[in-house]
Amino acid sequence: MTKKPLILVINDDGITAPGIIALTEIMKSIGDVVVVAPNSPQSGMGHAITINSTLHIEKISNFQYSCSGTPADCVKIAVNEILDRKPDLCVSGINHGSNSSINVIYSGTMSAAIEAGIEGIPAIGFSHLNHKWDANFNAAKTHVKTIAKNVLENGLTQGVVLNVNIPNLNENAIKGIKICRQAKGNWKEEFDKRQTPQGKDYYWLTGKFENYDNGEDTDEWALKNGYISVVPVQFDLTAHHCIQQLNSWNFNA
Amino acid sequence: MTKKPLILVINDDGITAPGIIALTEIMKSIGDVVVVAPNSPQSGMGHAITINSTLHIEKISNFQYSCSGTPADCVKIAVNEILDRKPDLCVSGINHGSNSSINVIYSGTMSAAIEAGIEGIPAIGFSHLNHKWDANFNAAKTHVKTIAKNVLENGLTQGVVLNVNIPNLNENAIKGIKICRQAKGNWKEEFDKRQTPQGKDYYWLTGKFENYDNGEDTDEWALKNGYISVVPVQFDLTAHHCIQQLNSWNFNA
Repeated sequence: MTKKPLILVINDDGITAPGIIALTEIMKSIGDVVVVAPNSPQSGMGHAITINSTLHIEKISNFQYSCSGTPADCVKIAVNEILDRKPDLCVSGINHGSNSSINVIYSGTMSAAIEAGIEGIPAIGFSHLNHKWDANFNAAKTHVKTIAKNVLENGLTQGVVLNVNIPNLNENAIKGIKICRQAKGNWKEEFDKRQTPQGKDYYWLTGKFENYDNGEDTDEWALKNGYISVVPVQFDLTAHHCIQQLNSWNFNA
Repeated sequence: MTKKPLILVINDDGITAPGIIALTEIMKSIGDVVVVAPNSPQSGMGHAITINSTLHIEKISNFQYSCSGTPADCVKIAVNEILDRKPDLCVSGINHGSNSSINVIYSGTMSAAIEAGIEGIPAIGFSHLNHKWDANFNAAKTHVKTIAKNVLENGLTQGVVLNVNIPNLNENAIKGIKICRQAKGNWKEEFDKRQTPQGKDYYWLTGKFENYDNGEDTDEWALKNGYISVVPVQFDLTAHHCIQQLNSWNFNA
């Protein structure tokens, strides 16, 4: 490439999170970076967008903007109101916590990547299996850069973005990168029921992730075995394999 | 069936919306109904869940509960804290407004159906193309009932839920039910930029849906031609067709 690629950096943990600071530094070694991130944590926001309230933007520095909205809002407002041209790449993260398996559905990090994909921008969501603020985001630095450069050079099939998860390991313990499918798993919820000082019940959502899928081609297997998982993710949700079966139903009953 | 099926009714427009009242009435003719719906509108919430704040439930009547959370929260709390047994069916809606094509991604209505699907409950999201409060939800009454009965009788493939959209037509103008795929389309956003009385910029998200897909097997085609569209929707987002291509990338560069 003769000119530097324009890279949009987004996340869902908020603009001050160490994960986005690490990702921004890595992307600066590849291209011109603009950061547009939520002004407060947006974890678990799924693909929410703000349609019933207003959005605000603050310019934080010459390349950083904070936005009052969700991760998906950040992409929309970046593309429409902040950037002069369509970015060559959108990266989201690095999320503090896993977005493997079914977590992709609840993930604000991945919703930003998916929103960029919908807008026709090659996009990657990065997540780290350590949710702590002081996770070692630099351990996978070389791999994050390699994946981003591959996307810039090869492009992505229309309608597909990448969901990248990084195991919580030191640099030399990471075995490499593995292309995977999303493991079948879900959360076994538990609600922690408490009472307000006034005696009214309230609940905290909690739970435990359960993986039902031992396939060696899954993201869960890769992560458990020391690999960075890369799942191609699509936003055509059609279950094509069910169409024939549904056509056999009797709708005239 | 010897005993009546247990049907969980959810929505994203809030427990007082005419769409959920219509859907509840239809379901009462099929089974025992429990309604657990947000206490305020949650449109555009995507698959958001509430993990950083508390959840409250109010019992409204002997079968109706309102919840302070998102549509996905409503499913989780219904299954774990309200219902005695796993429901035989979860229906979400009837949404005031379309959830065809890419709208499935942003839809609170569909997030409730998908959450139920993740929990192993056969689930359907219903949406009406008229977003007004006084839309004619009874025009498709017979069809809504037929679809729900088919799901109860035939079940759904594991990992699949139904996205049903209803055209804004009178009963005798609706031509029938069509099994479809999700049309390729997206929103062309426009941000309506305004100023606060204090002179600070703010934005309203607005825009126009654009359909790029003229396929006669799409939901958009069906709806435009007077049919109720039924799209089987999956939450394994893996783009399996891209795995081989990604395996050819060079990650050792």
